[in-house]
Amino acid sequence: MNITAPRGFQVASLHCGIKPEKDDLMLLFSQTPASVAGLFTTNKVKAPPVRYSREKVKGGIARAVIVNSGNANACTGAQGFQDAREMASLTAEALKVPEAQVLVASTGVIGHPLPMDKVRSGILRLPEALGKDGARAALAITTTDAFPKTAGVRFGPYTVGGMAKGAGMIHPNMATTLCFLTTDAPVSPLDLQQALRTAIDLSFNSISVDGDTSTNDCALVLANGAAGGKVDLSELTEALTTVASSLARQVVQDGEGATRLVEITVEGAASDAEAKQAAYCVASSLLVKTMVHGGEPNWGRVLAALGRAGVEMEEERTSLSFGGVTIVQQGVFVSGTWEAAASAMQQKEVQIGCHLGLGEGRARVLTCDLNEAYVRLNGSYLS
Amino acid sequence: MNITAPRGFQVASLHCGIKPEKDDLMLLFSQTPASVAGLFTTNKVKAPPVRYSREKVKGGIARAVIVNSGNANACTGAQGFQDAREMASLTAEALKVPEAQVLVASTGVIGHPLPMDKVRSGILRLPEALGKDGARAALAITTTDAFPKTAGVRFGPYTVGGMAKGAGMIHPNMATTLCFLTTDAPVSPLDLQQALRTAIDLSFNSISVDGDTSTNDCALVLANGAAGGKVDLSELTEALTTVASSLARQVVQDGEGATRLVEITVEGAASDAEAKQAAYCVASSLLVKTMVHGGEPNWGRVLAALGRAGVEMEEERTSLSFGGVTIVQQGVFVSGTWEAAASAMQQKEVQIGCHLGLGEGRARVLTCDLNEAYVRLNGSYLS
Repeated sequence: MNITAPRGFQVASLHCGIKPEKDDLMLLFSQTPASVAGLFTTNKVKAPPVRYSREKVKGGIARAVIVNSGNANACTGAQGFQDAREMASLTAEALKVPEAQVLVASTGVIGHPLPMDKVRSGILRLPEALGKDGARAALAITTTDAFPKTAGVRFGPYTVGGMAKGAGMIHPNMATTLCFLTTDAPVSPLDLQQALRTAIDLSFNSISVDGDTSTNDCALVLANGAAGGKVDLSELTEALTTVASSLARQVVQDGEGATRLVEITVEGAASDAEAKQAAYCVASSLLVKTMVHGGEPNWGRVLAALGRAGVEMEEERTSLSFGGVTIVQQGVFVSGTWEAAASAMQQKEVQIGCHLGLGEGRARVLTCDLNEAYVRLNGSYLS
Repeated sequence: MNITAPRGFQVASLHCGIKPEKDDLMLLFSQTPASVAGLFTTNKVKAPPVRYSREKVKGGIARAVIVNSGNANACTGAQGFQDAREMASLTAEALKVPEAQVLVASTGVIGHPLPMDKVRSGILRLPEALGKDGARAALAITTTDAFPKTAGVRFGPYTVGGMAKGAGMIHPNMATTLCFLTTDAPVSPLDLQQALRTAIDLSFNSISVDGDTSTNDCALVLANGAAGGKVDLSELTEALTTVASSLARQVVQDGEGATRLVEITVEGAASDAEAKQAAYCVASSLLVKTMVHGGEPNWGRVLAALGRAGVEMEEERTSLSFGGVTIVQQGVFVSGTWEAAASAMQQKEVQIGCHLGLGEGRARVLTCDLNEAYVRLNGSYLS
């Protein structure tokens, strides 16, 4: 399933010339006015399309989202704002919908003005290309991604669909993360915003360091109510969370050069917030990430990361496990466990469990390994 | 000059068998009781030698420091404490000095008990090896270092000497940083502690993220007053800062796999503290570090790092320069500067200047590039 699975949504994508060959322009269209909600980067440097869409989302109603890849339209000054606005107004005109109901997103290199002549002629050709090819649309918003990300789920008479892009070391600070969701459930903009916040906190905000966001990060959801009836908000929230979690996991799996997926669980922390902070600190440690790449259970690196996470912890109360093998108990190596832990570390999916032995706080964060390919990719990628 | 340059200090080093071949045991000895001061890791996980020496430094007087490399004696439980204490007591006995005046430091792999039989027989052989070979002693405390670090400076009748080890991506959280300083100036333990704090803040604490420390980080200074007279504390502080800064710079140059040294300057911040926070954020960004490796002036990555640094900043007020070439002014690319900035980025030493245009706050942080060699080294190094 993908973003066009819910009733009343269409997409179009094409190559307008920002990238050398691949599709670089994508339109998401709701056949009727839809409730809209959005979450945007907390980076102080916000790209013009982010600032533009953040304003428009406040209106609560949207008909379309116009997205380009290959150029982030970030750090582009006054021209960048003018270009973002023009993308919206041209799309509105082409679709014959109110300009205020069109949102804009961009991803790609920073600091280069959009080639607006190409974008303009591309937008004019989009409406006639509208259809149900959500897979192709998901590909059109990618940049360094190794594969497009789509997901969907049905619940009762309703459907949630979505697409995402992002591959930058899985932290949204490392590259743009875009996430677009659709549903045919009927819901007010206010309720939709609340549901989106929960879904993103449990998905994309569990693969990233809080506040560590790029200039262009953005998650949008459109709900057009085409399936009618009355939806239970908690069921909708759960469905949005399911789809967002699948997309977030795909982004981690696509971490630039990633060869292993790592699930870091922290339990027994003083609070959930401290557990999340500790899990993030482990997930962000270069020594932990390179250790995962090497496939050795060098548990000292995990313990050292927990020790500098800024949360309550005591070495003597801390236990660690790799792939379910308890390798450290009360701060000390459990002899005879190295081989089993090493074998767990050499799987495609690696579980690192940390128990602080202090309270009931718990959290889970997904990350990936750090390897030579990441350095190669980012040593030359112009972004 | 090195750690034996000041009068009245001797060193000895030898191979006791912790490492396969290289020297792995080092003794620093003051021929008379010396004032001592120390700074230790803020990591909640502190290795036994760190806890031991932190207590002993409070006595204010020291005669010797015994150091082993190849094994950090960290996360080693009760046995680890016993071993750290035994290293001190054996050294005290061999040198015929009070046990409370011997400090201990260890660096190397985490989580393995020290091979105490080898350490014991090594310590017994150290006193007869005492001499002035500070260069060899500096080599004996290294682990993944590509080269030993020594420095020294004379001021008036006095001398400061020192050695350091560390190469772990230059952040003390990435590997142990050890720094030992000596001087023949006469100074009280209290004044010495204050001077050391200033010297380390301006050197080792300007190459690391605050609080991002390893289990074993430690800086010690011994002042034996052998040159007599009365020293000006600010002159001593300046001399200690000079030596510590040289050592810290050598640690950055030795960043695991580093090919370029990067000096990040932030000016115009709301305060010095915010400037330091912003400079650290840029220095820690994987995208900035890989950009430096690639040698391209992808200034958007620097701007995005500043935007998520958690400090006051406005894109429209921010200027950036690479090697003195102003590539961004008021948040926008200055056309025609790319080639010159690119050429500046391809030097061995790269300057990244950030001006936030807000206040008088300024800071400087040293870092290095991130490249494939780092990943290779840390993917397999057992620590």
